[in-house]
Order: sequence, then structure tokens, then C-alpha cells
Amino acid sequence: MDPRGYLVDGAALVDAGLDAALPAASAPPERLHAAMRHQVFPGGKRLRPGLAFAAAEAVGAAPEEALPLAVAVELVHTWSLVHDDLPCMDDDDERRGRPTVHVAFDEATAVLAGDALLALAFEVVLASEGNLARRVAAARELAHAAGAGALVGGQVSDLAFDPERADVALVESIHARKTAALIVAAIVGGATLGGATDQQTERLRAFGGRIGVAFQIADDLIDAGEGGCSLVTLVGEDAARARGEELLEQALADLAPLGSPADALRGLGLFALRRKE
Amino acid sequence: MDPRGYLVDGAALVDAGLDAALPAASAPPERLHAAMRHQVFPGGKRLRPGLAFAAAEAVGAAPEEALPLAVAVELVHTWSLVHDDLPCMDDDDERRGRPTVHVAFDEATAVLAGDALLALAFEVVLASEGNLARRVAAARELAHAAGAGALVGGQVSDLAFDPERADVALVESIHARKTAALIVAAIVGGATLGGATDQQTERLRAFGGRIGVAFQIADDLIDAGEGGCSLVTLVGEDAARARGEELLEQALADLAPLGSPADALRGLGLFALRRKE
Repeated sequence: MDPRGYLVDGAALVDAGLDAALPAASAPPERLHAAMRHQVFPGGKRLRPGLAFAAAEAVGAAPEEALPLAVAVELVHTWSLVHDDLPCMDDDDERRGRPTVHVAFDEATAVLAGDALLALAFEVVLASEGNLARRVAAARELAHAAGAGALVGGQVSDLAFDPERADVALVESIHARKTAALIVAAIVGGATLGGATDQQTERLRAFGGRIGVAFQIADDLIDAGEGGCSLVTLVGEDAARARGEELLEQALADLAPLGSPADALRGLGLFALRRKE
Repeated sequence: MDPRGYLVDGAALVDAGLDAALPAASAPPERLHAAMRHQVFPGGKRLRPGLAFAAAEAVGAAPEEALPLAVAVELVHTWSLVHDDLPCMDDDDERRGRPTVHVAFDEATAVLAGDALLALAFEVVLASEGNLARRVAAARELAHAAGAGALVGGQVSDLAFDPERADVALVESIHARKTAALIVAAIVGGATLGGATDQQTERLRAFGGRIGVAFQIADDLIDAGEGGCSLVTLVGEDAARARGEELLEQALADLAPLGSPADALRGLGLFALRRKE
């Protein structure tokens, strides 16, 4: 399995779903709709949707079963990027070589476009066809991942981060909430729509949590020396790399009982962690 | 039925639900949790939760059946207040005699606390007990009311409002999205958790839409002369009052087939529209 090809196929699928879910840029209020689409298209690697598709496969379902969750998780991811980029937070003017939403539009529109993306994510999952219990469980994963106990809480802790008073546990707790929680929601939510058993769900939850933290460590190794909340800054490159490898090994052990149907998920995990840029 | 007493009883019920749903202010990150609670407690009249309880009664259910939706709708309402108050939007320093969240905390915390309140609303409805299909339908009402097609879209149109180019249809379209949509979600969502039939739902949706616009007109009559997007500014006090009465009459006609179980809902509608402050 070629993880790059898998992501390209998944991106085509999720991009069509995103386009169908988002309000048309030509419908009023046009400015809001254009702002909602600005950070969604063109997208990045669509790693989270890819993980959702692969997680559905890992429990024996067709990847398409995970589509509503894949679309929703990308909307939630985009909401978090748009709000994190705001002047009152990371104050980033550019992302992926383009002006951020508050620069291309204005601050109020960026706050509101982010809000609308978050609300839309729940509409997409809840309005999808198929098993009601699965839809509710997948939407709950997403709501938890977005909220105070995960993504928002992680961002608050990250903004308050003081390297002088940090230890490994704090850094990993921020990574777990700010980065891993949405990766867990992609994987567990995708598998849930695919009909995962409770036992499979718990395996995938452990895998996602570990791979998510390792993913953030890999990111920090690429941007080494940028400071902020980073294991690389705290313990150095070699120790951070070793911790990432340890998490990867444990994550692969979590996944072992799922056998060969989980091959795409394994491949994506390795690809995400071993990439060089 | 005494609408004030009904709202007081409903406030006790929904406040207990809100307190149970919100993360403890003593748990980390304390600052986020305190900011989430800041605008929720002390609350206002808790009109939207009261409407949700009364709507459940109107379809023959116990008001308590609507509790998860009542809690969630108040969380969504609070999210919208916290974000609307931000410096990049209405830039309000005070609300109900207390500093707004971005003043009492800071702007980043206000954006994030609002986000977390919105995500929590979906967790509350989806995690509630009882019929799955009703939960999904109620959560969908809420997601639609919060999103680009309703509350957020209405706020964007309100921020872009130009009185020189306004007509009655535009003003009412903004009221319908920014104010009435969440009132509709409270009423239809509460009735949905109470097991409303499709026919009852459509009656209640029409009632909520009309009462919601009339409610905004009543608000503008109290704040007469403040300008902005207001029918009072556009057509004058008398014509605005007449339009409010017309909407109320139509709304009561929508509700007529529901008979005496809808008395509490009628009473709350009249109370909300005829209040003087």
C-alpha cells in the first residue's frame, strides 16, 4: 500500500464531500461563504480524512462508510486553524503560502467563518444516512475532540505555556489534547461509522492517541528550534526522536490484533511520522 | 399560567443542568472553565430554555424531557453572546451589568470559551438518554440554527447592514436568522425530545419563526433610536409595533390546533413580546 496514493484518493473523495457540504460561495452572505471555503480549498494532505477512511477499512468496512466523519473532521480541523491564526492567538498572516482568513477577509469574518465550520461539522455527521447509533457515537467523538476537554483546552494550555515551568508530562498533555484528540476522533469516528466493535474501538483509540502525540513530535523535529511547547526544545532532538519511536512501537502493538485490514492505517501512521517536510 | 413563575421554575431546572454539563472551574485549565461559566452564571431570564420546556408540554410530554435541549440551546445562546461582544464585532465591554468575557479574561480566551460552549452543546444533546432518532433530530436543529444558514449568517449580514440600502425584507431576514432561528431550535428541539409528530413540529416551527422576529421587534421598541438593523428605525415605532402584533396574531393561529397543552408556550410568547424592559 502506497500511503501517498491512498491520501490522494482520499483527498478526491473528501474534497467532493466538502464542496457539497459547504454553502456555495455565490449564495448570500457571499463573504461568509467565501471565508468558510478559503482555508478548506486548496487543502493540505487531508491526513485526518485519510485516517478516517483507513480506520473504516481496519474494521472491515468500505472506506466510503467513513465519508461523513471524514468531511466533518476536516471542517473541525479547519475551524481550529482559522481561530488559532487570529491576531489574539498565534497572529499568523500566512498558511500554506496564502493569506489566512482574517487577513484575506477581516477578523470578525474569521471568527464567524470558524464558528460556522464547527457547526457545519455536526450537521454533516448527523444528517448522513445509515445507522443512528453510529452517527450519534461519531458526532460525540467529534464534539469531545473539539471541546474544552481536548482541542480548545489544549490551545488554552498552549497559549499559557511557560518553558521554564514545563516537564515532559505537561508537553505531552498539551500534544494529546491539541493534536492527538482530533486524530483519535478521525480514527475512532471513522471506525464507528464502519461498525467497529467496542474492542476494536478501544484498540483504535489507544493507537490514535499515541500516533497523535508522535505526529506532533515529528512536526516539532522538522521545525526544530522554534521553541514554544515542544519536546524537542525540552529534552533535545535525540531524546524527542526516541520518544516518538517508542510511541510508534506501542501504537503498532495496539493495532496488531486488527490484522491485515489495518494495513492502510499502519501505512498512514508510518508515513505521517517519517515524513521529512 | 404565570409566565414569570414558569421561567423561574425552568431557570432552576436548566441552571442545574448547565452546572452539571460545564467543566468545574477548579479543574485545569481553570481559566478556560471560568471563562465558559462567566457569561452562563448568573444568567438572564432563560427564555429559550423556558420555551423548550413549554414546547415539550405542548406536545403532551413532561417539560423535563426537553432538558438536554434546553441546556444546549442556552450554551449556544451564550456562545453567540461571547463572540458577538468581541472587539472585532460589537465591541461590548459590559453585559447584564458585568464585564464581558474578553474584558474579564482576554480576547483569545473569549474566542476559545465561546468555541468550547458551542462544542459542549452538541455533547449534551447527543450524550443524553432516550430515543436516538429524537436526539439526532434535536441536535440537527441546533446545528442548523447556529450555522451559516442562520445565526452566524445573520450576524454577518447584520455587521454588513447599511440602513441606506435596507428594506423590510432584509431587516426581517436578519432577525429571522440572528434571533428567530435559535428560538425555533429551542421550541422545535424541545418538542422533538418530547416526541412531537411531524405535523406538530411544522406548527411549532411556524410559531417559533414568527414569535422570534416579533421578539426582536419588541427588543428594538425598548431600545428605540439605537439605530442599526431595526424595523423601528426603518418604518417608525407605530408601524413596527403593528408588524409585531400581526406576527403575534399569526403565531397564535399557528399554535391553535395544539389546544390547551400549548398554554404555557402561548403565555411565554405573549410575555416575551409584551414586556417593557
